[in-house]
Amino acid sequence: MYKLICKDGTARRGELVTVHGTIQTPVFMNVGTAAAIKGAVSTVDLEQIGTQVELSNTYHLHVRPGDEVIRRLGGLHRFMSWNRPILTDSGGFQVFSLAGLRKIREEGVYFNSHVDGRKIFMGPEESMRIQSNLASTIAMAFDECPPHPATREYMENSVARTTRWLIRCKAEMDRLNSLEDTINRNQLLFGINQGGTFRDIRIEHAKQIAQMDLDGYAIGGLAVGETHEEMYHIIEETVPHLPEDKPIYLMGVGTPANILEAVERGVDFFDCVYPARNGRHGNAYTNRGKLNLMNAKYELDDGPIEEGCGCPVCRRYSRAYIRHLLKAKEMLGLRFLVTHNLYFYNKLMEEIRSAIEEHRFSEYKKRKLAGFEEEQAAEQKMKVRRTDT
Amino acid sequence: MYKLICKDGTARRGELVTVHGTIQTPVFMNVGTAAAIKGAVSTVDLEQIGTQVELSNTYHLHVRPGDEVIRRLGGLHRFMSWNRPILTDSGGFQVFSLAGLRKIREEGVYFNSHVDGRKIFMGPEESMRIQSNLASTIAMAFDECPPHPATREYMENSVARTTRWLIRCKAEMDRLNSLEDTINRNQLLFGINQGGTFRDIRIEHAKQIAQMDLDGYAIGGLAVGETHEEMYHIIEETVPHLPEDKPIYLMGVGTPANILEAVERGVDFFDCVYPARNGRHGNAYTNRGKLNLMNAKYELDDGPIEEGCGCPVCRRYSRAYIRHLLKAKEMLGLRFLVTHNLYFYNKLMEEIRSAIEEHRFSEYKKRKLAGFEEEQAAEQKMKVRRTDT
Repeated sequence: MYKLICKDGTARRGELVTVHGTIQTPVFMNVGTAAAIKGAVSTVDLEQIGTQVELSNTYHLHVRPGDEVIRRLGGLHRFMSWNRPILTDSGGFQVFSLAGLRKIREEGVYFNSHVDGRKIFMGPEESMRIQSNLASTIAMAFDECPPHPATREYMENSVARTTRWLIRCKAEMDRLNSLEDTINRNQLLFGINQGGTFRDIRIEHAKQIAQMDLDGYAIGGLAVGETHEEMYHIIEETVPHLPEDKPIYLMGVGTPANILEAVERGVDFFDCVYPARNGRHGNAYTNRGKLNLMNAKYELDDGPIEEGCGCPVCRRYSRAYIRHLLKAKEMLGLRFLVTHNLYFYNKLMEEIRSAIEEHRFSEYKKRKLAGFEEEQAAEQKMKVRRTDT
Repeated sequence: MYKLICKDGTARRGELVTVHGTIQTPVFMNVGTAAAIKGAVSTVDLEQIGTQVELSNTYHLHVRPGDEVIRRLGGLHRFMSWNRPILTDSGGFQVFSLAGLRKIREEGVYFNSHVDGRKIFMGPEESMRIQSNLASTIAMAFDECPPHPATREYMENSVARTTRWLIRCKAEMDRLNSLEDTINRNQLLFGINQGGTFRDIRIEHAKQIAQMDLDGYAIGGLAVGETHEEMYHIIEETVPHLPEDKPIYLMGVGTPANILEAVERGVDFFDCVYPARNGRHGNAYTNRGKLNLMNAKYELDDGPIEEGCGCPVCRRYSRAYIRHLLKAKEMLGLRFLVTHNLYFYNKLMEEIRSAIEEHRFSEYKKRKLAGFEEEQAAEQKMKVRRTDT
């Protein structure tokens, strides 16, 4: 059940009540693809850094350890020891991006496992059954994530099929939720809007799925190669055609700046692999932009990643120590960066929620975006100076 | 300052008072080679699993990030954020086992860095200066760790040089501890007994170094290829010739069974890479022996690694989940195993201390050793059964 608490312009402050607790929105979900956050971050750590929702991948868990295994172990919450909400994606995105040779048919997709190459079929019903076995809080509809760029013809056919698949997803989820032995009989289902950068296809599709009384609506297929301006434009055009009394989720996005822009356009849910991926490359998020801790200038830097940061890493460890861990290829360095980066995102969302509540989101966003540029500008200046001399 | 609290047979219950706190012995030191425990285990984790002493490697830290860097950052305690005792080894063992082409001379050892191949010289004075820069609680003397097997002639020459080096170590450590700008002016120095499996060389060397009034004495050069029986025999023969009012440290040993046997023969300090190395291979220590969590039989096992274990992993995560993490190559799986295994060793030492205090060590040891065999026996039985059918 989504409740809109207040609006500040088009930005929304809301909450989604679930059987696993209430999610305060806007929210950033922390990605734990295979029922684990990359970088050896545990669910105990997630509780300490204010994570509200963990996101796992249906495709990965279906392949290993198998959703039947997780069902027999009492579902994903119990399996990974996490009692707050979990969102599972539908597997669609992974099938289209990870799996080997695939065939898309009306009934679903035939493809080869990326682990052992064995043939797998997944369609709307299979995806719902897997997600029901996982017993996540929120299941995502099985859709096609079309390639970018795609022709108008391809996109129209793809979106029409995604709509037909969505109808089948809803029917199957209703059936599964009505079964006695389903672990989470209150599993929510979010539909996914597609249409690439074709404004009219997006809007038409949004209108169609808005009729279906789903528990939430996602905007998928963005951040796949189009410009940020195109992405913001599509969000702006699509959001007004989705139901106002349901949460809106922008899939796989993005940078802190992307999130601020999307919140301003009415988005409530986010997820992205950037905090982990950047950690792997030695990058730490700060309010002045990203720092690369591999940089020699941090060798003797006794300060935390960011002064005043309340994360478990900044409260105790220095840039110099983290730099050493990264240089020595100690796993602990990656764990520290991922922990800090996820905390940074979670904290950003907390600030965003306060700013909307206090009707100062626009001013907050402006100040925040200016801050993010500082470090980049300083780096740029140093480079120029070095070239000069 | 070592204080003997009580003895049970030859087993000793004592404590070593240091500027970084009092160490209750017998103790197992947790190895963090490059100022970090393998498997992304943090110093916060170490505090939670009852670690008393962290052990770091002089050679590794000299090569990266450099002991001068650590000195400028306030010493190893501050660098890695750990305020309990730290022992640093002398670098000798690594020079002899890791480094490239080397030449042993009276003044010390010339060798190539394993990181970038650059030429390094390390002798007794260099080792003391590096360890003084690191400002560990306990520094180890710089010795030669002779190859196994070695001829009597080689061993005699090597041990004689190690004694001459020890005299230089002590003089240099005294000088460093007297300097105004030394970070830890109370740094302790442990000497190292060598002699391979030559009983008479061991004893003669023990008698010589016992005269030097060092802060503690280590038995080095064991667990390098000799049998367990030879090792126990050498410990038994050597310990009586070391001062009773000083702690005794058996370097690089060993399995839980090795530790029980050595404690019975009067040893106080231990360190070993087994808890981490076994973790890397999917092995978890239990009181019934080691389990390999990669084993298919744990796929649906909802129980903790060991029932009743109080470690942060067993209190929350199942064998099935850890097995999944290992199979999926998630770093979190390794972190969980190393955490559990270190807790197991720390807990074992706690039990050993209680048993000695209560004068029931011999009975305790017998029961414990029998327990360790159980799982192995069960595994063996299953294998036999499989072969039968």
